Amino acid sequence: MSKQQKVVLAFSGGLDTTYCTIYLKELGYEVHTVSVNTGGFDADELKELEEKSKALGGVSHLNIDATEEFYQKSIKYLIAGNVLKNNTYPLSVSAERVFQATAIANHAIKIGADAIAHGSTGAGNDQVRFDMIFNILCPEKGIITPIRDNKLSREEEIQYLIDHGVSGNWEKALYSVNQGLWGTSVGGKETLTSNEYLAEEAFPSQLKQEQPKEVSVTFEKGEPVAFNGEKMAPVACIEALNAVASAYAIGRDIHVGDTIIGIKGRVGFEAAAPVILIKAHHTLEKHVLTKNQLTIKDQLSITYGNLLHEGHYLDPIMRDIEQFYESTQEYVSGTVKIQLAPYRFYIIGVESAHDLMQSTFGKYGEMNNSWSGEDVKGFSKIFGNQNMIYHKVHQTDG
Amino acid sequence: MSKQQKVVLAFSGGLDTTYCTIYLKELGYEVHTVSVNTGGFDADELKELEEKSKALGGVSHLNIDATEEFYQKSIKYLIAGNVLKNNTYPLSVSAERVFQATAIANHAIKIGADAIAHGSTGAGNDQVRFDMIFNILCPEKGIITPIRDNKLSREEEIQYLIDHGVSGNWEKALYSVNQGLWGTSVGGKETLTSNEYLAEEAFPSQLKQEQPKEVSVTFEKGEPVAFNGEKMAPVACIEALNAVASAYAIGRDIHVGDTIIGIKGRVGFEAAAPVILIKAHHTLEKHVLTKNQLTIKDQLSITYGNLLHEGHYLDPIMRDIEQFYESTQEYVSGTVKIQLAPYRFYIIGVESAHDLMQSTFGKYGEMNNSWSGEDVKGFSKIFGNQNMIYHKVHQTDG
Amino acid sequence: MSKQQKVVLAFSGGLDTTYCTIYLKELGYEVHTVSVNTGGFDADELKELEEKSKALGGVSHLNIDATEEFYQKSIKYLIAGNVLKNNTYPLSVSAERVFQATAIANHAIKIGADAIAHGSTGAGNDQVRFDMIFNILCPEKGIITPIRDNKLSREEEIQYLIDHGVSGNWEKALYSVNQGLWGTSVGGKETLTSNEYLAEEAFPSQLKQEQPKEVSVTFEKGEPVAFNGEKMAPVACIEALNAVASAYAIGRDIHVGDTIIGIKGRVGFEAAAPVILIKAHHTLEKHVLTKNQLTIKDQLSITYGNLLHEGHYLDPIMRDIEQFYESTQEYVSGTVKIQLAPYRFYIIGVESAHDLMQSTFGKYGEMNNSWSGEDVKGFSKIFGNQNMIYHKVHQTDG
Amino acid sequence: MSKQQKVVLAFSGGLDTTYCTIYLKELGYEVHTVSVNTGGFDADELKELEEKSKALGGVSHLNIDATEEFYQKSIKYLIAGNVLKNNTYPLSVSAERVFQATAIANHAIKIGADAIAHGSTGAGNDQVRFDMIFNILCPEKGIITPIRDNKLSREEEIQYLIDHGVSGNWEKALYSVNQGLWGTSVGGKETLTSNEYLAEEAFPSQLKQEQPKEVSVTFEKGEPVAFNGEKMAPVACIEALNAVASAYAIGRDIHVGDTIIGIKGRVGFEAAAPVILIKAHHTLEKHVLTKNQLTIKDQLSITYGNLLHEGHYLDPIMRDIEQFYESTQEYVSGTVKIQLAPYRFYIIGVESAHDLMQSTFGKYGEMNNSWSGEDVKGFSKIFGNQNMIYHKVHQTDG
Repeated sequence: MSKQQKVVLAFSGGLDTTYCTIYLKELGYEVHTVSVNTGGFDADELKELEEKSKALGGVSHLNIDATEEFYQKSIKYLIAGNVLKNNTYPLSVSAERVFQATAIANHAIKIGADAIAHGSTGAGNDQVRFDMIFNILCPEKGIITPIRDNKLSREEEIQYLIDHGVSGNWEKALYSVNQGLWGTSVGGKETLTSNEYLAEEAFPSQLKQEQPKEVSVTFEKGEPVAFNGEKMAPVACIEALNAVASAYAIGRDIHVGDTIIGIKGRVGFEAAAPVILIKAHHTLEKHVLTKNQLTIKDQLSITYGNLLHEGHYLDPIMRDIEQFYESTQEYVSGTVKIQLAPYRFYIIGVESAHDLMQSTFGKYGEMNNSWSGEDVKGFSKIFGNQNMIYHKVHQTDG
Repeated sequence: MSKQQKVVLAFSGGLDTTYCTIYLKELGYEVHTVSVNTGGFDADELKELEEKSKALGGVSHLNIDATEEFYQKSIKYLIAGNVLKNNTYPLSVSAERVFQATAIANHAIKIGADAIAHGSTGAGNDQVRFDMIFNILCPEKGIITPIRDNKLSREEEIQYLIDHGVSGNWEKALYSVNQGLWGTSVGGKETLTSNEYLAEEAFPSQLKQEQPKEVSVTFEKGEPVAFNGEKMAPVACIEALNAVASAYAIGRDIHVGDTIIGIKGRVGFEAAAPVILIKAHHTLEKHVLTKNQLTIKDQLSITYGNLLHEGHYLDPIMRDIEQFYESTQEYVSGTVKIQLAPYRFYIIGVESAHDLMQSTFGKYGEMNNSWSGEDVKGFSKIFGNQNMIYHKVHQTDG
Repeated sequence: MSKQQKVVLAFSGGLDTTYCTIYLKELGYEVHTVSVNTGGFDADELKELEEKSKALGGVSHLNIDATEEFYQKSIKYLIAGNVLKNNTYPLSVSAERVFQATAIANHAIKIGADAIAHGSTGAGNDQVRFDMIFNILCPEKGIITPIRDNKLSREEEIQYLIDHGVSGNWEKALYSVNQGLWGTSVGGKETLTSNEYLAEEAFPSQLKQEQPKEVSVTFEKGEPVAFNGEKMAPVACIEALNAVASAYAIGRDIHVGDTIIGIKGRVGFEAAAPVILIKAHHTLEKHVLTKNQLTIKDQLSITYGNLLHEGHYLDPIMRDIEQFYESTQEYVSGTVKIQLAPYRFYIIGVESAHDLMQSTFGKYGEMNNSWSGEDVKGFSKIFGNQNMIYHKVHQTDG
Repeated sequence: MSKQQKVVLAFSGGLDTTYCTIYLKELGYEVHTVSVNTGGFDADELKELEEKSKALGGVSHLNIDATEEFYQKSIKYLIAGNVLKNNTYPLSVSAERVFQATAIANHAIKIGADAIAHGSTGAGNDQVRFDMIFNILCPEKGIITPIRDNKLSREEEIQYLIDHGVSGNWEKALYSVNQGLWGTSVGGKETLTSNEYLAEEAFPSQLKQEQPKEVSVTFEKGEPVAFNGEKMAPVACIEALNAVASAYAIGRDIHVGDTIIGIKGRVGFEAAAPVILIKAHHTLEKHVLTKNQLTIKDQLSITYGNLLHEGHYLDPIMRDIEQFYESTQEYVSGTVKIQLAPYRFYIIGVESAHDLMQSTFGKYGEMNNSWSGEDVKGFSKIFGNQNMIYHKVHQTDG
């Protein structure tokens, strides 16, 4: 390279991105590291990341807080859509990768970087998600993925770092954990099998509360705006609920998923607040939305979740579905009471000014004055009319 | 009536159908009672029903066992489709009504009845389900629904019975319970509100086991064929699992649903085996089906569940979707391990010869020899190509 | 009736509503007639309606022009969604009934009517659409449908009118025609069969132009805003296109539909502008939308069309889908050239600043510099990866 | 190469595959050419292909007739599903590629080839379809695509052939045409623009018949089994209809599609029989299927067509949907009359023993004895009940 080229490196401070920093420097790059917080880092950890980058020879380091953006542009809609991948997984990691990659791409554009590097391996989803966002937002910048490109093993990376005088404790943690505002994913030896469950200690939160407790979340137009009656911003509300519910070790499961690259993968997760909020929100919706709204939301959310999972966040169809969601949330306001207990929870009930069930116009199990038995009889006859005809026509067929 | 007319009455032995028996007799009908067992009655209860009918003046009584038919023609597909109405309710009652109504209609045709009667009130789903099946299978027979037609209250019915010399203990149970092979529904004062949960004693099974236990269910082409390694018929397998899991009080929740007649209704349920089997089966499918199969099954099952709920079981589209399900189940064979604990369960893992995850052709988290980092790089570029173009075209729009 | 009751009658001036006017008057009602124009009446016809009502003894008559509202609240979205029922019928009548019924209901509320009457028979869709809108918007008002209620034949109606001294030419037209801005429906003796086509003279517009001609429609955010380069309001644009295209007898077909009441019905239609506009708009969309937008729009439009057809326009899900449509139309701007010829047309092509095809970033059939053959090779491998694994796993199965 | 390696080359005899033959021979390969007929070649053309291959030095040449397999495994379902990509294109080329690639892969496996070669360029869909099938069926064999790999221009290919002593008339045809049983695609200078239509002479069939004519197609369980009353095999039926209808220049259009690689592409096509058969079949279905069957078929067919288009024919979900289709076709039997005219056609009507419209149980436009006006009144009330409640609850909101 005649003029020194700039590379922006997505930096987490682990073995892979430490390797990348040294490797890129060796290749002659001016390495600018970026860490994007989507709710998983605290102030100390961010400071540590900055120092680590500097120690490794990063020319600059930037910590970007994308938590609020992550909520406003994604979590809000995951709640509105009650999005659970394969009815199980709140898409914790899938969603946050978008905002990490976008922040990194924008920084790369801003500082005029020639390339973007990330530490992804060649066997997961994140490589595709990062690549895609970079290709879309700055297709002219090269993408460098040293670990993937060279099919490096942990041992090779460690040896390389030792050879380049970088010390560190590279002992592999038993479980690899990825934490963010919308949940924590956990991988480990059990998730590499099909038939074993994660050990109790693999999960980030351990059971600390035995005594069941009732809590409440208040929604306004589909957004969580109060916890136990106390008004707070949605991000704060999620954090508050998560702190209380995690002590009950709620929201754990193993998701068996289809990676974007076609293989099956198993990932443990713990996501107390996401799992509770989605069920609470969904229950509220069952009281205030019409059945057509509920059905079509369910169908669209399968698509929305799949597209998000596969890295298509930037496709304009996502904005279109979000406008649909916004419209459906007009009356999704009310308070949901939730019972927390060790490892489980249930929805006690809801209170909402828009509750279609508590309307005086029709109560389940009670005879009503706005229609008669004759009306229902006529309804049943007409509702089944086509099949009456169909069965008459085909009766002789046996 | 010149010649005495015959009516077939769907008979459960409760206040409503007792009233109907007397009322129809008074109208001059020859009353033939029928009780259809879909897994909720034992031999003693059936004998009692027969005697009760005789005592009330029923000309004949027939007990029909539709349990196996219920499994073969419905439950099998509810498992294949992982059908949970609004992601919650296994459609326990919705499904069994079909087979009760069909058996009654066939009996009415066989004995040449002039009419069919049922004890439904005018405020729920069952009236429509019964009416529709009768209208489709024997549209020429009249339908008589005395409680609905006359908008009778419990008190009026009791007074009528007393006036007609029928004694009985008509004290209202605190909770109305409907039991069948695919779950038990529970209604009571709390389910008439939006914000209260059912009392612990409302649920039919009380917690009797505290010690967690591992069990297993083996599936063959999507059907449960063994419990804890012991081969048995699917119906027996469901019953065996239910017996063990109910002791943990598993599978309880409250469903908020849209009735067919447009009002919202809340119903408690306890369905240990259904809820466990669906999650176990779904997890097995995540290992053996392709992502396209999983996605399209999810979408069709929303429709299948809604149509079943609304009484459209006899629409030929149901048979078409069932053929789709049959095809998808070809490789859904394997054993699923389940951990039972008080009020909850989780899936430990699966073992299957068809597991796409344990294939040697691609393992999650491991670099693979059948593709390279370059392949994925190319994939990401092409996979996001249209959005790269889209964003370039609209870049100047801001 | 102690105090004379007011009824609002939906009035078209034909035999049925003439009968209703007299019949209701005889019953003692104060009859207020309303005619709602959705693009099918001209000024003379409206004046005639008013006079006719007065002559029959209507206490008041109101002509309401709902054409613009019909466009803004419905046609706009039928274009945005490319809505064709069963891929054939532009829902001409289904859609306009909503706005007629809404206008009538609002008038009934305004003048404090006790009931609403309409002349529907008991065998079609319109009775349900009218009933539903009235039940939703003013459930406390009675609905009177003399023709349906009394199962009257034409002959009985005519005799009744003669008996009441009402003269008129009640000779039945060979074809019953319903005209509005979004198309004309035609029923006649052939549409009562399954195997005959309508006679040429049954269609409202006869072939008057033989010479093919090129025209153009310009869309802005999905709305037609110019015809042949001349800017005009959408309603005017539809009318201008329709005038020119009808001379070519374009847009005819027979739709075989499922009525809301379960029977099959066949209806002829002629809808030059609707059919052309939908194909023109759809073609433009194929150039400017992403494939995910196109696919999901197609799926939602099946639902949107069915709900509209079945009278569910007032369900809030319709507003939600309309918000989705609005979002998708952001870049649906450009000009579409259309070739008109006798009985047919085709789309010549489109010009749009948002055309994703004419982007310099990727041209079909040309090798491109933004990706390589290797990229596509990698893409193909990964894109088919799961099925490679699937086929390996099941290879031995045969 | 120590031992000479075998390559199987997909051979069409045009410039690209002629180049590939020479190029692969030069690389030292033993070149085995294969041509797969899916209805586009006649006996003379096949003989010519064999001779051409021999002349170029192909070690062996095989002509495979896949026409019947193409019908049985694909066209049959495209008819059953009424599959038109984006409501326009019968997927002519997309579908036949699968059977060409499969036959080639099977031949490569049989003769123990080391690699498979095809002449695709890097800008279209076919490269991906071929790659995917080969990767799935024989992932261990290399794929060689000389034109794509070397980004060759026509001029470079011609020069190379001249340099290697291969003579031939390589003058570029004005239009590139691909012909098969399910339609002919046409590309040319107009399809590279967005706003021009193909010249009349670009289409393979020219208008030869001016006089309108009525023809008929008889379907049995969804398959075309007779033309004009004469029984014949489905493939023969398609050919017979196509011969007659092509003389009217029917079935032409331009499809604007999303290529698998993300760019937009425009392709002309002429597909008289496919377009007519799909509309005829669809019309018959409208008479014999229930509305739920029609709706769900429409929705699944969007998915089925997209997956086929994108090369996912071998995904087991396709077999599952085909089983669904098979089930729906049980009663899709009858005769459809079609009017042919220059450049257009319309469906006159259908005759079927399973026609739900001609049933005596309910006729459109006639009052019926199996239900009353009161029944419909009750139906309308209940059918709109939820929205009545919804509007009452939200009335005060404005």
